[in-house]
Amino acid sequence: MTDALDTGTIDDFYAIIPAGGAGTRLWPLSRQGAPKFLHDLTGSGQTLIQATLARLAPLARGSVLVTGEKHVAACRAQLPQLSDADVLAEPLPRDSMAAIGLAAAVLQQRHGDVVVGSFAADHVISGTAAFENAVREAVAAAREGYVVTIGIAASRPSVAFGYVRSGASLGIAGAPTGLHALGFTEKPDAVTARDYVASGDYRWNAGMFVVRTSVLLGHLATLRPALHAGLVEIAAAWDSDTRTEVVNRVWPGLEKIAIDHAIAEPVAAEGGVAVIPGTFGWDDIGDFNSLAALLPSVDDTGNKVVGDGSEVVRIEAGGTVVVPASGRVITLLGVDDLVVVDTPDALLVTTRSRAQQVKTVVDEVRQAGFVELL
Amino acid sequence: MTDALDTGTIDDFYAIIPAGGAGTRLWPLSRQGAPKFLHDLTGSGQTLIQATLARLAPLARGSVLVTGEKHVAACRAQLPQLSDADVLAEPLPRDSMAAIGLAAAVLQQRHGDVVVGSFAADHVISGTAAFENAVREAVAAAREGYVVTIGIAASRPSVAFGYVRSGASLGIAGAPTGLHALGFTEKPDAVTARDYVASGDYRWNAGMFVVRTSVLLGHLATLRPALHAGLVEIAAAWDSDTRTEVVNRVWPGLEKIAIDHAIAEPVAAEGGVAVIPGTFGWDDIGDFNSLAALLPSVDDTGNKVVGDGSEVVRIEAGGTVVVPASGRVITLLGVDDLVVVDTPDALLVTTRSRAQQVKTVVDEVRQAGFVELL
Repeated sequence: MTDALDTGTIDDFYAIIPAGGAGTRLWPLSRQGAPKFLHDLTGSGQTLIQATLARLAPLARGSVLVTGEKHVAACRAQLPQLSDADVLAEPLPRDSMAAIGLAAAVLQQRHGDVVVGSFAADHVISGTAAFENAVREAVAAAREGYVVTIGIAASRPSVAFGYVRSGASLGIAGAPTGLHALGFTEKPDAVTARDYVASGDYRWNAGMFVVRTSVLLGHLATLRPALHAGLVEIAAAWDSDTRTEVVNRVWPGLEKIAIDHAIAEPVAAEGGVAVIPGTFGWDDIGDFNSLAALLPSVDDTGNKVVGDGSEVVRIEAGGTVVVPASGRVITLLGVDDLVVVDTPDALLVTTRSRAQQVKTVVDEVRQAGFVELL
Repeated sequence: MTDALDTGTIDDFYAIIPAGGAGTRLWPLSRQGAPKFLHDLTGSGQTLIQATLARLAPLARGSVLVTGEKHVAACRAQLPQLSDADVLAEPLPRDSMAAIGLAAAVLQQRHGDVVVGSFAADHVISGTAAFENAVREAVAAAREGYVVTIGIAASRPSVAFGYVRSGASLGIAGAPTGLHALGFTEKPDAVTARDYVASGDYRWNAGMFVVRTSVLLGHLATLRPALHAGLVEIAAAWDSDTRTEVVNRVWPGLEKIAIDHAIAEPVAAEGGVAVIPGTFGWDDIGDFNSLAALLPSVDDTGNKVVGDGSEVVRIEAGGTVVVPASGRVITLLGVDDLVVVDTPDALLVTTRSRAQQVKTVVDEVRQAGFVELL
């Protein structure tokens, strides 16, 4: 089964968009009640989740969103093209394996054995054609029974990402660049990351998984039988009157585990994972410093603004990252490499080099009792 | 004429409080519409103008405020103890000589030849007893016909203040520490300031002048006859039905000149100025860095907060000056020696070493068209 042309919808392909995670290191812009996927961080005119769906809609026969119950209303307001059936609400967070497994099981229930691709709602991707090519190759490899990940060409030895190591060619006609995946690694230290990138065999693991529903659920039945049984029971009831009863009874008891640990790593060890090299730009915008790298400068001293640059008055300031999200005017005099995030009820001032540690600020704000700011 | 005891009201002494100046280097806390004298910058529980009046009220028979028409309502709200007659409104700013000269002429009109003392509304003073002693000595010297200034013991070679140079003892019984003033200097460079302080003959010129009304107006008649004539004409009409007509006709044409240049410097050259050494703490709070020097640290890393310290969450931050004046929570991570001033419509982020240059921010804000923020 192949596509007649390398454009247009892929008939047997459905997109899964897990939308979770508070984006704590992007506080106070990103909050528990308004996580980063609901924000237009790059000034594209679309929020991250809108851009994610817009990127996948031309490729997929359908798209399913999996998110927490408390985010359903905001997601649906931003994504009016989704129907009731396209939004799967989790009563409690149970990590990515339960979220993606539920969506896969529901889609198999509705459409039979199809290929699904899971793409996080809060990543930034540039280069549409390269992305689409990678997805088409991934679908082709998935049809052959692989769990397929897209490995991003590492443009720098980042210690903020995990890596996937590749081996020999898959030898699949529809996936000419596809390689066997030899394994996954956690975020490395700087020396290891440099070795990875120098070797040419390691790519960033962007957490994108493309797989036939029957293959995914089969691996799950073998590797996590209890989780599999729970998800299949919920999926069977999803489009029926018993959904609420079954979800409330079964979901809270599901194992909390990431799909990487539950499926990708053990299956890679058995030779069942493929990697498609992705040459498009990708970032998970982990913090304000990585966000800055994606933004153009607003002047010749390297200042970046998330939002309206006319609201930021800069005098002898360089390399700053400013988020004017309160409507107030922000003025900077003689400061370099600062991060200033201005929201209606909380202000953060830190440095780009400390941006990864913003979680400690959130912890301290919680400690100080300002729970309404979390 | 001497006082029986060194406590209580001085019968022939009236205080003049000129309240002007926007305090541009304290923007965005200090604004054209809410200058620094209307703010409680030191956390004392009183605004600067409230503290100024409270400091003088026990000493003076009466106090007169001179301020711009647009600040009258705010001043009267903060100073309910002042009567209509105690507030002199200037239709336009005409610098300190016109303001103080008007008050002196009005007070002479009302009370005859009395001693007046002019004390700016936006200075910070600590050490009440030392201040009162200095004022009592100054009044005694003023009664003998001197223009008397209070010279502040220079605790450091500041380049932000002007200096007054002193000579031999006055030899006046009621002013035992009083000295002849040999002259005034503008703000010196650092080397000169060090020489001044080392010599022991130079004190900070705090702009406090104590003088008999007849002496002040006599000098003015000689040195600035047109200004003197205008002020006398206005004062004669002040407590009558013709005040508005006369003020509107005469005030706009008055010369704009500081009392230092109009009176203090030329009279000092003739030997008519005395200086009383003041040993109390004094600052004119020119900028956020000098404000910081007056505040206690809120922690053991030298952070200073103007306002409620519980609204500032600090992690590995040191030496900062934070003004939480918007009700929002301010969080700092890994930053040192920053100045962060948070108001409802404008935010300033700079460094303590740049605090003197905040005026350039105000210029830029005006340039950018945000006139409502000035």
